[in-house]
Amino acid sequence: MEEKEYQELIGPYRECLGNMENRLKILAEDYRKRYGEEPIHHMQSRIKTKDSIESKLEKKGREKTADEARYYLRDIAGVRVICYDLAGIRKLARALKKQGDLEIVKEKDYITSPKENGYKSYHLVVGVPIYRVDGMEYYPVEIQLRTMAMDLWASLEHRSCYKRKEEDRQAWSERFLQYSLLLEQMEQAVAEDREQTEKRRNPA
Amino acid sequence: MEEKEYQELIGPYRECLGNMENRLKILAEDYRKRYGEEPIHHMQSRIKTKDSIESKLEKKGREKTADEARYYLRDIAGVRVICYDLAGIRKLARALKKQGDLEIVKEKDYITSPKENGYKSYHLVVGVPIYRVDGMEYYPVEIQLRTMAMDLWASLEHRSCYKRKEEDRQAWSERFLQYSLLLEQMEQAVAEDREQTEKRRNPA
Amino acid sequence: MEEKEYQELIGPYRECLGNMENRLKILAEDYRKRYGEEPIHHMQSRIKTKDSIESKLEKKGREKTADEARYYLRDIAGVRVICYDLAGIRKLARALKKQGDLEIVKEKDYITSPKENGYKSYHLVVGVPIYRVDGMEYYPVEIQLRTMAMDLWASLEHRSCYKRKEEDRQAWSERFLQYSLLLEQMEQAVAEDREQTEKRRNPA
Amino acid sequence: MEEKEYQELIGPYRECLGNMENRLKILAEDYRKRYGEEPIHHMQSRIKTKDSIESKLEKKGREKTADEARYYLRDIAGVRVICYDLAGIRKLARALKKQGDLEIVKEKDYITSPKENGYKSYHLVVGVPIYRVDGMEYYPVEIQLRTMAMDLWASLEHRSCYKRKEEDRQAWSERFLQYSLLLEQMEQAVAEDREQTEKRRNPA
Repeated sequence: MEEKEYQELIGPYRECLGNMENRLKILAEDYRKRYGEEPIHHMQSRIKTKDSIESKLEKKGREKTADEARYYLRDIAGVRVICYDLAGIRKLARALKKQGDLEIVKEKDYITSPKENGYKSYHLVVGVPIYRVDGMEYYPVEIQLRTMAMDLWASLEHRSCYKRKEEDRQAWSERFLQYSLLLEQMEQAVAEDREQTEKRRNPA
Repeated sequence: MEEKEYQELIGPYRECLGNMENRLKILAEDYRKRYGEEPIHHMQSRIKTKDSIESKLEKKGREKTADEARYYLRDIAGVRVICYDLAGIRKLARALKKQGDLEIVKEKDYITSPKENGYKSYHLVVGVPIYRVDGMEYYPVEIQLRTMAMDLWASLEHRSCYKRKEEDRQAWSERFLQYSLLLEQMEQAVAEDREQTEKRRNPA
Repeated sequence: MEEKEYQELIGPYRECLGNMENRLKILAEDYRKRYGEEPIHHMQSRIKTKDSIESKLEKKGREKTADEARYYLRDIAGVRVICYDLAGIRKLARALKKQGDLEIVKEKDYITSPKENGYKSYHLVVGVPIYRVDGMEYYPVEIQLRTMAMDLWASLEHRSCYKRKEEDRQAWSERFLQYSLLLEQMEQAVAEDREQTEKRRNPA
Repeated sequence: MEEKEYQELIGPYRECLGNMENRLKILAEDYRKRYGEEPIHHMQSRIKTKDSIESKLEKKGREKTADEARYYLRDIAGVRVICYDLAGIRKLARALKKQGDLEIVKEKDYITSPKENGYKSYHLVVGVPIYRVDGMEYYPVEIQLRTMAMDLWASLEHRSCYKRKEEDRQAWSERFLQYSLLLEQMEQAVAEDREQTEKRRNPA
């Protein structure tokens, strides 16, 4: 893929990504007004680089062209939404799935069912509509919803080099499973503390 | 209206305005690819100020509240699209009116039928959908499409102080009608020149 | 130049351009507060495309590399500032030239001395400082200040195809000189009207 | 303070904040090129709200005016920089302190000397120059540099309600000190792993 082809490829993905970020901001703002609580700590958006698209196509045994990328990849545009707690993730996911003009392409709940290494996150791929001169088209955007602790875990795991080393791979794997547990406990303790305090102030 | 109320009022209008700017950029980009020509010279967006909203409500004999503003004003959010020529305006307007998720609220063609003072512009008010936690809502955005010459005329007319002065109001009115004519002639001459050159190169 | 090289080349120019736009917005805001008048109608920024950089290097008889571009081109980053009147242009230019951390690279006043074809604009090339890990560097940004009428003229002239045609080149040249004159007269009439009205209201 | 006064107050702080974000992006980009590693995970900027400014002035025993805010507050504009590791924090801080046009207003290293409750972060307040029509002025921007683990800790501590409750305050305090320790250990383990792997690959 030439750089020019790549730039043309990602144009509409960039627009859809901006559109999705806006939808998330509107939902967050709406929640803040209703429940007095901000659900989103921060968001991070990215468009896959040319190199990353090509290596992913290669892994899938596809040709490295813009057409194949459009057809086979659903994570060219991605936004990661770091939430304050699990409740925020659930609320946002539910609201997104109700937006009538989006197309739900894929849903994967790695929070209820974490990956074997301890990875947790809620993934949603939605088709976002774009209006062109002669009609409408959907482009996929991958949304990852996770708490700050899940994000810290994923970053530590990603930065660790244990996967490359035979000798202490097993020890590190166990360590990361333990980290995952510790982080979950911290977040849960604080969440429960908030909930109880809330209940004491507003008994049903 | 308190400033806080105003800030809350304009929140969703700001989002819809951004959404509309994006739609226009996508259309412009699409045209550039199809016809090799950029249709838009530049865009200018504005959200009505608190003072301006209040004085407009007053003129309409309404109370100066956010609710009345939401109900009676359709130009709280506005984007002005300055095009290179009339053909661009017509193409963009047609494409916008075909976008299935927008609601056409009002259309006013001051190009075909200029105002008495010489004002020319094509106005379209559309309802832009916003998805909230519990459903979808439309917010109006006013789109003004005009050429650079129409924009220069409007700016000169707006900046001129003749309206305040009894004595030479008539002379200035005639002058602006004449300016309007001169500016139209300049743009038309260049547009025709382009068209003929195009035809000579690509005879049907 | 490979696209990747181009992307790396323009990175710092993009930053400096954003920095310059910000400086202009701050000045405009400051003027609005002091004189009650907005000086800037709108701004347009652009980074030269790869093709445009290469063809310019070719014209200059240079190699088409990023290094040569950095060394020989001073308009890779450019911002066009469309002002409401000549007074605004003069005030902004004066304020920019006083900003102590900028380096004045080049100044060209095509308003006082228009080009032969009628082109008018005030050009300023300034070096904008960027702070890196190990020190500071200047990158040039070209600033073009012009009124709306000058901008309309430049656009019409640019879009006209007369330069390609032998037969009526002379007629068109004269026509554009006349357009330039007519447009200047319109702007000047309105400017004088404003000035007189101002004087009547605030006699010294 | 009226909302209008507040809006005018924060104008230049907003510009300086944008300027600072840009400087940080340029440094991050520069590091990525030099060391092949991105130092910044993400940034979060905020302008203090009107309510927050007023309550801070009240605490300081000052009048709630824009002038007092300008004079006594140094955190009206703030940017939080979440880094991948401690090394990134140190490098960015060093580079910022070398930028000749900034004024170092205050430096506080809560990483070397954490607060009693376990809070860690590196704080820097710098004066950022703004050029007005008639000269230059500095506006303070507070920069907080911290790792992802420090940021998670701060968020958990901030969200916890233990401070309001007499009965288990002591238990929670100890818990947060322990969290702080656990989080530090996780980050350090991964940082050391990276360092050793790096050394093995590039022995001096």
